[in-house]
Order: sequence, then structure tokens, then C-alpha cells
Amino acid sequence: MVLERVKQLAQQVSNTVSPPHPLDPLSALEIESAVSLLRAQHGKLYYNAVTLLEPPKEQMVKWLADPEHTQTPHRIADIVVISTDGKVFDGHVDLNEQKVISWAATPNVQPLITMEDLQIVEHIVRTDPGVIEQCALIGIPREDMHKVYCDPWTIGYDERFGTSVRLQQALMYYRPHVDDSQYSYALDFCPIYDSNLQKIIHIDVPKVRRPVNQAPPNNYDVKSIEAQGGFRTDLKPINITQPEGVSFSLKGRTIEWQNWSIHIGFNYREGIVLNNISYFDKNENKLRPIFYRLSLAEMVVPYGNPEHPHQRKHAFDLGEYGGGYMTNSLSLGCDCKGSIHYMDFDFVNRAGAASTIKNAVCIHEEDNGILFKHTDFRDDSVIVTRARKLIISHIFTAANYEYCVYWIFHQDGTIQLEIKLTGILNTYPMNPGEDTKGWGTEVYPGVNAHNHQHLFCLRIDPSVDGQKNTVFQVDAERGPGEVGSEENFYGNAFYAKKTKYTTATQAKANYEGSTSRTWDISNENKIHPYSKKPSTYKLVSREVPDLLPKEGSLVWKRAGFARHAVHVTKYDDSQIHPAGRHVPQTSGEPSAGLPAWIAANPSANIANEDIVLWHTFGLTHFPAPEDFPVMPAEPMTVLLRPRNFFLRNPALDVPPSYARTPSQVAAGKSGCNSCVDKTSVQV
Amino acid sequence: MVLERVKQLAQQVSNTVSPPHPLDPLSALEIESAVSLLRAQHGKLYYNAVTLLEPPKEQMVKWLADPEHTQTPHRIADIVVISTDGKVFDGHVDLNEQKVISWAATPNVQPLITMEDLQIVEHIVRTDPGVIEQCALIGIPREDMHKVYCDPWTIGYDERFGTSVRLQQALMYYRPHVDDSQYSYALDFCPIYDSNLQKIIHIDVPKVRRPVNQAPPNNYDVKSIEAQGGFRTDLKPINITQPEGVSFSLKGRTIEWQNWSIHIGFNYREGIVLNNISYFDKNENKLRPIFYRLSLAEMVVPYGNPEHPHQRKHAFDLGEYGGGYMTNSLSLGCDCKGSIHYMDFDFVNRAGAASTIKNAVCIHEEDNGILFKHTDFRDDSVIVTRARKLIISHIFTAANYEYCVYWIFHQDGTIQLEIKLTGILNTYPMNPGEDTKGWGTEVYPGVNAHNHQHLFCLRIDPSVDGQKNTVFQVDAERGPGEVGSEENFYGNAFYAKKTKYTTATQAKANYEGSTSRTWDISNENKIHPYSKKPSTYKLVSREVPDLLPKEGSLVWKRAGFARHAVHVTKYDDSQIHPAGRHVPQTSGEPSAGLPAWIAANPSANIANEDIVLWHTFGLTHFPAPEDFPVMPAEPMTVLLRPRNFFLRNPALDVPPSYARTPSQVAAGKSGCNSCVDKTSVQV
Repeated sequence: MVLERVKQLAQQVSNTVSPPHPLDPLSALEIESAVSLLRAQHGKLYYNAVTLLEPPKEQMVKWLADPEHTQTPHRIADIVVISTDGKVFDGHVDLNEQKVISWAATPNVQPLITMEDLQIVEHIVRTDPGVIEQCALIGIPREDMHKVYCDPWTIGYDERFGTSVRLQQALMYYRPHVDDSQYSYALDFCPIYDSNLQKIIHIDVPKVRRPVNQAPPNNYDVKSIEAQGGFRTDLKPINITQPEGVSFSLKGRTIEWQNWSIHIGFNYREGIVLNNISYFDKNENKLRPIFYRLSLAEMVVPYGNPEHPHQRKHAFDLGEYGGGYMTNSLSLGCDCKGSIHYMDFDFVNRAGAASTIKNAVCIHEEDNGILFKHTDFRDDSVIVTRARKLIISHIFTAANYEYCVYWIFHQDGTIQLEIKLTGILNTYPMNPGEDTKGWGTEVYPGVNAHNHQHLFCLRIDPSVDGQKNTVFQVDAERGPGEVGSEENFYGNAFYAKKTKYTTATQAKANYEGSTSRTWDISNENKIHPYSKKPSTYKLVSREVPDLLPKEGSLVWKRAGFARHAVHVTKYDDSQIHPAGRHVPQTSGEPSAGLPAWIAANPSANIANEDIVLWHTFGLTHFPAPEDFPVMPAEPMTVLLRPRNFFLRNPALDVPPSYARTPSQVAAGKSGCNSCVDKTSVQV
Repeated sequence: MVLERVKQLAQQVSNTVSPPHPLDPLSALEIESAVSLLRAQHGKLYYNAVTLLEPPKEQMVKWLADPEHTQTPHRIADIVVISTDGKVFDGHVDLNEQKVISWAATPNVQPLITMEDLQIVEHIVRTDPGVIEQCALIGIPREDMHKVYCDPWTIGYDERFGTSVRLQQALMYYRPHVDDSQYSYALDFCPIYDSNLQKIIHIDVPKVRRPVNQAPPNNYDVKSIEAQGGFRTDLKPINITQPEGVSFSLKGRTIEWQNWSIHIGFNYREGIVLNNISYFDKNENKLRPIFYRLSLAEMVVPYGNPEHPHQRKHAFDLGEYGGGYMTNSLSLGCDCKGSIHYMDFDFVNRAGAASTIKNAVCIHEEDNGILFKHTDFRDDSVIVTRARKLIISHIFTAANYEYCVYWIFHQDGTIQLEIKLTGILNTYPMNPGEDTKGWGTEVYPGVNAHNHQHLFCLRIDPSVDGQKNTVFQVDAERGPGEVGSEENFYGNAFYAKKTKYTTATQAKANYEGSTSRTWDISNENKIHPYSKKPSTYKLVSREVPDLLPKEGSLVWKRAGFARHAVHVTKYDDSQIHPAGRHVPQTSGEPSAGLPAWIAANPSANIANEDIVLWHTFGLTHFPAPEDFPVMPAEPMTVLLRPRNFFLRNPALDVPPSYARTPSQVAAGKSGCNSCVDKTSVQV
């Protein structure tokens, strides 16, 4: 019967009318097909991930160049499971061949914690005698255990337990009423949960106890706001409509918009993955490749309170939980306004069935103010052209926090990654009069929000006019020669100092604000006919704090990617996850991912090579009461800008809103007014 | 007859039904009234500026607190004129008393160059024999002199001519056709124009000559784009409508929006001036002052080519030309979309008549994406609330460049200054094969665009819960104790290190990217009840390059404000212009403005005092062909964020787009959906 089902699913997959693009995420059907094959061979397994194994780049580049005459790469499922006796297996299933092509137990690792793994913990803690006892000690009677909640986090790494036991730490909270925000009522102890045993194996109890907070709830729900005087009534609607429809078109998951062409992938870890990002250049009359792949590949959120066990709070939200798994199902007019196209995301559940997040990805356009403008002061002849942007976004909820990820494409060739942080601060209780010692802020009576950083690792796999690229560090520097010297008499000389990166060992750099440091991703084989400079996309990023946990610290060891703002490595198909494939409970000894890859090949040439640039950026957050009980969104931006890539401003052919030449002014003519907007009004 | 006119105008002014707010710009009537009084006393004068002298702060603060029972400050015109024999006079006219209250010649200064001053130069150069000769030498025949253009700049400072003669330098261009962009055809020589004599007094001719560029035009006008294949046709309209009107209200020039209250001033130099910025705090049930005055007070644009005479290219666009004078008259749907309220700006012309820029200031709202969101991963109970922003903007054209200035107010209490740079690069010719030596980029054949910086000085006059404020420098620092020590065992400790500024001499600081340096403007007399930290607005600014001209250089001397990212001074009514009141042709010996004020009172206490914070920010621009022939707008942002100012997130009462509590989820209820937007569609 099982075999019947395998054949049936395989038939359905091959019957699919339009075959998927090789980079499309696995469909529900493909997921179930892979699972049924494994089930037939291995029986019952707990599924952690069934995701697309992207085809080797070499093969993909050939296929992308000539899909008609190139064999389509096979669809391969990359699989992580936990056996019923707690062993971890990694494997690959070839969906075209319908066979398992690799299958092996992976010792001493823990794959990420899924939403299902998380959901179980709260039920367990409520009935655990040790937890009940601790609750009683700080003022929660046994009969109120249904008011006790927990945000289960991966344990990070705890040297007392190591890697072999699959663990979560339960950050404990209390809700006086089910609709009260629990983050005003953090509890002071921390149970440790064994996922395989499904029980609490230890409770960390602080020396100084902190009874449950007695402050009134600090809520943001509708009823509470209404009770506090109600909502403001003076906001008039702003309607955004696109009566003629959107300006983009989709073939499968490949979007075309304003000369851009982008394949929109998605997986359980990184969330949105953008592939084969190209721009149709009218001057060259061809689609020019820019980035083979862009994604948020990892992140870490270290907290700055040195008291045990807060050092364990340093979530790798992508590698430990999955930015895709935690993605919100979006709703119209709430998360995005205007004319919205959504994409769903199929994933595997623990039992092996396919599940779907509806509206996981939002695609829409927005007006973006002035694209360019110039007025001639002589006669007021003018051109003014409005900008449009395309936004491909998803939002994921990592327990208390929300990350809104916006991949934005501009008409001038700029790619922008904007991340908005919102949601709720992680909190810990404090006694009346207790000193935060500077490691946190009392954002509400009895509520200590600890200092933390959000550090994101942007994986940039460039293909600027081809796969062979070079990274240059660019610093604004003063010219040689003192004031009064012949070469720099007035002392005003300055220039862009370029440092070429040639090996991965050399290519580790921090941010330098004073020189406005940027990084050029250049194709040295393609020289701009005017500037004689190589075709380039420039990384411009200004929110780049140092990793604050010290060298040699737990976080420093585990989050090797975050030690520098930029690393560059030679491309390798297997190097996607800069903190390693299986992140939970890594000790950092040795550091997985990026540091290991660089150490394995320290002098590998990265100049004029197929390379990957790993950029860590983010912010340091010292909480304030304004961030509570729910945090106004804080945006952060990284830009990738064309420099010496286009012959000239590539957006000159965007229809102007208004344009009038000197000769039209002189002749008293009104000039061209092709403004698409006739709906604005003067008030 | 003159006296008749004086009386008549005075009568009209006093008859005005609603008297102006003391900070309103002078009206056309007030300007003409002041001029007629001066004309009666002093005869013919060339008017450089007639602007509001803002009332002393002490007087204004009293009036603002209780306008009903406080004497309204007199309307005083602050006047700069040049006499027919070239002397500069500064004076004040009391419009209420109708008398000149101060009048004096100011020796050895040059007031700014007005648009009228600029307009004359091009006519003069075309007929100057020396210019005609130079044009002939590089290939422009005498009969084509009508095709010769110039962008007249202030001379900056040229030691050969000093300050006593009023000068402009004429940056020369050529247009094959009147509608061609001249910036592809810069000419290699530079005439110097005497404004009083109205003639060319010198021509700087380079050693290496560069014949006029023979490249075809590089144009962006409609006809040219149509000839090159036409405009893109795939942009569908995005309509933004506000069927119920706007959410702000105006009483005179005081705007109220979403708890904000702001007086919108404007003058010829700074452009928009925002005064008395306050927020109605529901918790305290009062309007809380935050900033007494915010403006862009000065800027400098140094160019990095050390070859003579390019060192003279370092425009102080506000102090040398006037950001108000150069302001564009805005048009609906082109510069801003939606429901727009405009404000005009009245100024004096050279002859003394009032002139008006219609639609100088644009006021409108925009949707701003997600304000906050949180989903409970347990049950998908959720709140999502959309943000709105209020934008008060103007755009000014400084010869080739455009500066779009957006003062943005957010519902969460954040104030954002966004500046978009667009317009056209300043260019200089280059011969085929000529080496730019790294001081510029060949952005088009024969066109050298020099490296430059745009450095803006934001004048922040705070009144955070009152006039007595203190500035703290805040750096993210690692905690003490090595990894493995008892106090920092896991090495993860970090905190916000605060450095208090106590004197103006001490309060000079550069930006530090690695510590995410910010500055707190705090009221130490008002402590937050929860956090026990002082009420604060935090300056967050990430685009803060060093001033690249060297210490002791011409620009360093003239632009003293730009030597550091932050200066703090004790408040003084007379200290508005950080490079001095009259900027053109200052030598910088001694440095006017900020350095002089600090030197005059080096140990003045600035802690818990009435203070001003001067913040210099901006960017360093290494041009690329993508910036030509007209530059896609490049945005830059500075934030002022409330920290420990509000009791909690002040935007919790913004109606959510969607909200559903755990109990509603459990009961299967749909939750509150008060989403104001019913117009979004799924495509």
C-alpha cells in the first residue's frame, strides 16, 4: 500500500502540466512524494525539513543561459529527520528518479527547533512538578498553572548538557488574564526541556528570587486601549489603488518589472531567496546578470546581561528556528496596501505531511517619491520624474520579536534590503529598587528589558556581468601632500582608496564610519567605456555595529560570521549557512560555517573568481519604555548600487511627471506633461 | 509721496485681520512696509534680504506659554542691503513702531549672492572680450557666443582678491542646441565677475587647454529620450487619494497632526524652520515641548580636486545663496502625491519689491507601512497597525544640484530629516586619454565629475520638557571582565556608555560607527518613572563622514562647523548661522560662526542649560556614469527618537488594521477589524 502511494505521487509529480523552475521551492506534492519514498524505506520518522536542494551552480548557470537545449536539473529534496530513537539523519531524494540518493546518520548535531517542537513545551511545563514548585515559590498557586506560559528557545549552548541531548530553554511568563501581555510578567526561573524525552530535565533558579510582578497589566489589545480612553479618531483614510493593475508580470515564480528579472524562491530557513537577479539593459540589448543569489542566510541576537543563564539568550533565528517556518500568513491592507500578489509556502510537518503557509510572500509596488529632478535656474525649464519601487516581502515571528523583511527593487538599478524590527522586547523580572547594573532598562515597573544586538548575515552571491567577480574595500581618504605643498596647496584633495581582496584570510573587514567605507563587487573583465572602471555593484551599509560579545566568548565562537562586517569566500555549492548546517547546541569549538570554510582553504584566490560576500549588519538595542509593551517598527537598510555598471542613469526612460525644455519655455509652450497621476488634490 | 506710501503700508499691516504669529515669516506687505521706511530714510538701495528677526527666545517662551496674557513680541525685519556705491548695511526695522531701530555699515563682508545677482553674469560673460577670446581658443567661434552659458558661483575665497570686492566665479558651459544639457560641455577656463562693477575682472586659464567636447549630447529631455527608443510603457498608475480629506489641521502656520504641534516658518537662508515642536501627551494630559527650533542652518560642498582653481568649489549653499531663495515652486502630483497643502514664501527682490514663490512648502501625509505588529505563535492572535507620516518639504536648486528636504513626523514620536540629492553633477572637461588622477570620474566622454562631499549642518535647539537640557554621547561598549572572569564569564556583557558634555570646548565629537555612537539630548530634571533615566530625544545619524579637506585647509578654516559631527553651545539669540552671518568671501581667518563662538566662551557650562546642538552629517560622493546626465535621487536620513520621554509606546492608540486576542481566537470570533483601508486588492 505504501508503495502504491509512492507510485501514485510520483505519477502526479511528473504529470504536473508546467514543470517547476529548477529553483522553485518544493511543492506540497513533491514534499509528500519524497516523504512517501522515505517512509517506504525507513518507516516512521520525525521530519525536521524537506526542502529543495538547489542544483549545482555550474549546472544552473548553463541551464539559465539556454534552458531549451540544456538538460533540466533534477528536482532533489534535501531532508533532515529525527528517528524515533532520537538519531539525526541527513539525506537527499531525487524526485525525478524517485530514489534516495544519500542517507546517513549525522552524529552529535541538533537540527533546528520547529514550530511543532516549540508548541509542545508549554503543555509540559504546566504539569511539571518542579515548575509548579518554582511557580509557587514566586507567588503563583498550583491552580493558576493554566496562566503560566513559556516562550521556548533553543538552549543555544549549555556546557553542562552539550550537544547530544536535544534541548530547549523555556523562558517563563505569567498572564493574569489570557488576553494580558505576558511580557510584563516574566518569571525568574528557567526550565530546560528535553525534546526527545518530552520532559523537563533541569531548572535554573537564580540566587535572588523575584516574585511575580504585581504591576497592573501593560496591554495593547483593543479592549485595553478602549478602556484607557480609546483610539484616536482623527485619521482619515489614505487609499492606494491601481485601477489598471500592476506593472509586473510573473511566469511561475520569475517576476519581470521595470527591466528587472528575478526568480523568487523561499525555504524554511532563509525565507525569501532571490535568484538570477538580472536587468535588461537597453544599451547592450541584453539581460545582464547581477546576483546569482541573495538571501538573509543567518542572524544572531546576543543579549548583554552577563548573569547566568542569560548568556544563553543569543538566538540564531534563521539557523535555530527557520525564518521560513516562522513566516506569517499576510493579510490584505494590513501588512501591505495596494494591489498585492501573494505566494504560498509549502513545508513538511513533523509527521511528514505537507502543510502550507498561505500568503507567505507579498509582492507589490509603491510610489517612491522623486526619482530625479532638475530645474534650470535661468528659465525654470524642468524635468521631474517620480519613482516606483517593487517590494518582495515576508514577516516572521520569532517568539517575542517580529522581523519584517523587504527586498526592494528600484528603477535606477538599486537593490535595497530593508528590515523592520517590531514585536515585543524579551523581558526578565526585577524586584522593586533592583539595580539593572546597566545591562538592561526597566521599561515598566518590575520589567527588565536586556540590552541586545540584532546581527543579520546577508549572503551575497554575485554574478556582476558573469560569475568571476572581485571585491574591493573602498575608503574615502585625504590626498597626499600637506596644506601649502605644491600637490595639495589648498589641502582639499581626496579620493576613493581601493583595497583589493585576494584571499579569504585577507578579506575580513570591519566597518569604518569615518571613511564612509563601502565595498565594490566588481567584474574586472568588463570595463566601463567612459570611466574605465570595472562594472560594479557597491555594497552601502551604515548600520554595522561591532559584535559586542568579546573575542573568545560563547557567542563569538558560535557566530563566527558576525566577527566582521565583511567576509569573502570562494564559491562552494555546499556553503549556504554561515553558522553551519545544524546550528542548535553547537559549541563553537571549532566554529562551524564561515570560520571553518576559511580555515580549510585560507589562501584560496578570491580575485576574479566565483565568490560569495557575507555581510553582517544590524543594530544594538538599548531598550526604552517607548519600546513597550509593543515596539514601534525600527527600520534598517542595506543598499546594493550600480556603479560603472550602466552606461548612464538607466532610469532616464521612466516617463516624467512634468518636463519642459528651454525652447518650450521661450516659445511659451506648456511642455510635456505625461504625469500618470491625475488624482492628487490641493487642500 | 514716499511718506504717504509708508503710512499707507503701515496702516495695511496693522489692519490685517488676524495678526501674524510672532514666528511667521514676513508677509509681502510687511516686507514692502520695511522697504518703504528705509527708502524714505536712505533712498535707493539694493536689497539683499528682508527677513523676520525672530523674537528673543526668552520673550517667545513666555508668549508661547501664555499668549493671552503676554505682550506679543514686535515684528522686526532683519535687513541686509548694498548701497549704490557698494557698501553693505545691516539693520533692523520695528514694524509695529514703524521705525528703523538699527542701521550700520558692515565693513569687509559680502552678503549672499541672490538669484538676481546670479542671473546677470551670463549676459556679461557672453559679451566680454576676454571670454570671447578664450572661447575661440577652445573652438567656439564668436558668432556662437549665445551658446555659451555659465553657472555663476560665489567665489568662495580667493586670496588674490580678498573680501572687499564682491565677486562670483563663472563656471562655463556650452550648449550645441538650447535644449542640450550643458554639463556634457564644460569649458576649461573660469572668468571672475565683479558684482558691483558688473564686469569680468580676471580669467583663470589652465596650463593644459581642453578644447570644447566633441561628444554627442547626453540629454534627458523628452525629445531626446523619444529619439533613443522612447519611454517605457509598462508603468500602470498608482493613485493615492484621501476621500475624507487630510488628518492635519492648520491655524495660521501652526500645524496639528497626530498629537504633534509645530509652527512652520521659512526664511531666505535656511528654507523651512520648524519651531515650538511639541507633542500632546495623553498620559500627562499636556502639550510637551521637545524642540524650540529645528533647521538646516548651513552646508558646504567641498570638491576634492587639488588643481587650481577647483579649490574654490566648496559652496555654502545656504549661507552663500540661500536655501529659501533657491526654493522651487512645487507642482501637484509631480513633487508630492495625494492631498497637498502648500505654503508660499514672500521675499524681497533687489529693487525692494516683495516677490513670491508660490507653493514653496509642501505639506502632506503618506502611509508608512507597518507601525507595529505582533503575532502570538501559540494561536495566531495578532495585532497589526499601519503607520502614517506627515511630511513638510521644500526643494531647492543650487545651480546644477537639487536638494529635496523632507521634515517627517512619525506617530511614534520620531522626527526624521530626510534629504534627497538629485540634479546634475558639477563637471569639468577632460582631454581624450587624460588621467583624472583619482580626483574625479569620466562619467561621459570628455566629462570629468570631481569627487565631492555634501555636508549639512542641522541646528537642533532643544526644549526637551523645558529649556534646560544636557547632551550625552552614547557608545555601545563591552562590559568589564575577560571571558572566564566571574563578572563576565561568558564574555557577553555590554552596555550603553554615556559621556556627559559639560563645556563647549569638550563637546566636540566625531562619529564612531563601531560603537553605533548616538547622542542623547536629555532633561536631567525630568526622570522617567519606570526607567529612572532622564527624558530624552536621541540623535541617530549614520551618514557622518569626516570633513576630508585637511586641518588648516581653506575649507577647514571657512567651514568650522564641519570639523566635527557634533558641537554643543550655550544658547544665544544671535547664533543662528554656524559659518557666520555673511558667508561669501570669508577667509576663515579667524573662522566665523561656531569656532568663534566657542573660542569666545570656551568653558561656558552646557550641562542642564539652554543649549544648541550642531550636527554635521552628509555623504562623500565619488561620481559614476549612473549619476549622469541627471542623478537618481540619493536619500539620507537623520532621526530624533524619543527615549525615556514617553511613559510607553505613544502610538498604541492608533487604530489597528487588524487585531484579535487569544480569547477571541479561542471563541472562534473574528476579532476587531477597524482597518481604514478597504481598497487593497489581491492580484
